[in-house]
Amino acid sequence: VLFRDETEFVRWLRRRWPERPSGLRLGIGDDAAVIRVRGDSDLVLTTDLSLEGVHFRRDLHPPRALGHRALARALSDLAAMGARPRFALISLALSQDTRRHWVRAFYDGLGALARRHRVTVIGGDTAVVAGGIMVDVVAVGEVARGRALGRAGACPGDGIYVSGRLGLSALGLSLLRSRARSSALSPSAERAAIQAHLYPEPRLRLGQHLSRRRLASAAIDVSDGLVQDLARLCRASGCGARIREAALPLGEPARGCDPLELALDGGEDYELLFTVPRSRVAGMAPAAAGVPIHAIGEMRRQRGVVLVGGDGREMRLEARGYDHFRNSG
Amino acid sequence: VLFRDETEFVRWLRRRWPERPSGLRLGIGDDAAVIRVRGDSDLVLTTDLSLEGVHFRRDLHPPRALGHRALARALSDLAAMGARPRFALISLALSQDTRRHWVRAFYDGLGALARRHRVTVIGGDTAVVAGGIMVDVVAVGEVARGRALGRAGACPGDGIYVSGRLGLSALGLSLLRSRARSSALSPSAERAAIQAHLYPEPRLRLGQHLSRRRLASAAIDVSDGLVQDLARLCRASGCGARIREAALPLGEPARGCDPLELALDGGEDYELLFTVPRSRVAGMAPAAAGVPIHAIGEMRRQRGVVLVGGDGREMRLEARGYDHFRNSG
Repeated sequence: VLFRDETEFVRWLRRRWPERPSGLRLGIGDDAAVIRVRGDSDLVLTTDLSLEGVHFRRDLHPPRALGHRALARALSDLAAMGARPRFALISLALSQDTRRHWVRAFYDGLGALARRHRVTVIGGDTAVVAGGIMVDVVAVGEVARGRALGRAGACPGDGIYVSGRLGLSALGLSLLRSRARSSALSPSAERAAIQAHLYPEPRLRLGQHLSRRRLASAAIDVSDGLVQDLARLCRASGCGARIREAALPLGEPARGCDPLELALDGGEDYELLFTVPRSRVAGMAPAAAGVPIHAIGEMRRQRGVVLVGGDGREMRLEARGYDHFRNSG
Repeated sequence: VLFRDETEFVRWLRRRWPERPSGLRLGIGDDAAVIRVRGDSDLVLTTDLSLEGVHFRRDLHPPRALGHRALARALSDLAAMGARPRFALISLALSQDTRRHWVRAFYDGLGALARRHRVTVIGGDTAVVAGGIMVDVVAVGEVARGRALGRAGACPGDGIYVSGRLGLSALGLSLLRSRARSSALSPSAERAAIQAHLYPEPRLRLGQHLSRRRLASAAIDVSDGLVQDLARLCRASGCGARIREAALPLGEPARGCDPLELALDGGEDYELLFTVPRSRVAGMAPAAAGVPIHAIGEMRRQRGVVLVGGDGREMRLEARGYDHFRNSG
């Protein structure tokens, strides 16, 4: 085994780079890094890989959606930091059989999302490889000095909130995979799930709202499933969490898909998961920055993530969402 | 054909991103992008892919050298902008058969170079893929406001200079490929060429020296061969160049390798190629920032790159160095 899981890898990496130079506010292990350059704002930097065979399949994901998703992954990290996006750099390794219309559609998708959020592409690198297509998107954002949201600020007693709906993207992927079979969903529910998977909307306005109003004590984006990402927030904050099944914003049940399972372990929702101190909970509306917000539980001293079922019984949740080391080889 | 060459691809990309928001000083098509955040310095950002089968082979390049080279490629871009490096983000797609000692040696090589230049690794992304290893290094540097060196500032009459020695890295690669065969070189000359290939030294101090003293009108790093990179500088500056064969800092002749050919088209030298206005030429010493500097020719109005041979005859040079679109599939 290369590394047991990402936690071990991040610990291993951090031991190698123990220095914290003066300009660095937040380094390895959060959604993005935060550096202080000068003046009254901090810069937020993140980089996200999108790899054929790992993050996408060319037969399921049209190039326009890939361009959108590759940038959305990085912008979602900026959203989780409360940052306003500014610039992006795109590294693109194309496979030898890529055609120009593919590249055009890829940049169309990426460009439409970029323009909507006023992100300018300022550079990158390109190569042609024998293997699959690889994209690496670097996103640069800005946040008011000292106001970046990290994963590490949650305290016992803080409320746990999530935006939008969970498990929709995983349902969409499952529908794309089994196009022919009936899902028992209405056509419009099918379309919504597939849209959520192909064109996820990074919650940038919500992240900036949380940072500006000092509402969130910690935040992370749900990229690898609620349990996995909540566990990361808990580990970083040094506490645990209890969430209630009845409070989770689940999707409709579809044939062969359990909405609860999809919400807990599905991943790629790119919703924001954040904690709010008790003193600030009064400021939380059922919607913020145009997105519905759901209170799903509370942070607590005891480590680990616990789910309170419909029958009131508690169940300890183990992360089964995506982990780059466990889900490979 | 996907794109005829990189020039066409860069033009194509630029047409898609015509906007130049206020914070952007230099966008797509130079060694790095330059953004103005606030205060008295500009930020310089670059991203560089290192791909198995394109930029390296695991049987020729030990992991320690790969870590060094992956970072050196990005730092060399910062050097060409006259920037001081600050931070790096590392995206790493490992193949399924990678072992931990490989990852350790990779980060050892990268870390040694990073520490030497006070670069802190602040983040990145990691995944495990079915195909070959892929590295993407993002480097962030700083340069005094308005003082970044671009490719576009050269004028007819400016002197053309290059640091170090050209073709050594390509010779080193050729030696690694044909280990068994005699090269007719001394063992120490062989070692020097292999070292130049495996552990290239980004010319950061020289780049900063050129920027601080306002010596260079334009600069680029020699990553794809002198002709290719000089042609890029000429195109960006809207003029041409005449260089003298006798003035080129060539390596020793080895069996099966023509030093002139290696210098013109070899690539991966990571030396700085820069132009100096006539009024500043007096400030140029035969060495600067600890590196030998060679005057190799002059910029001129007429487009294209011309080589004056030992016999005084002029020869028009066509770029045969590495081009990601021409040298593939």
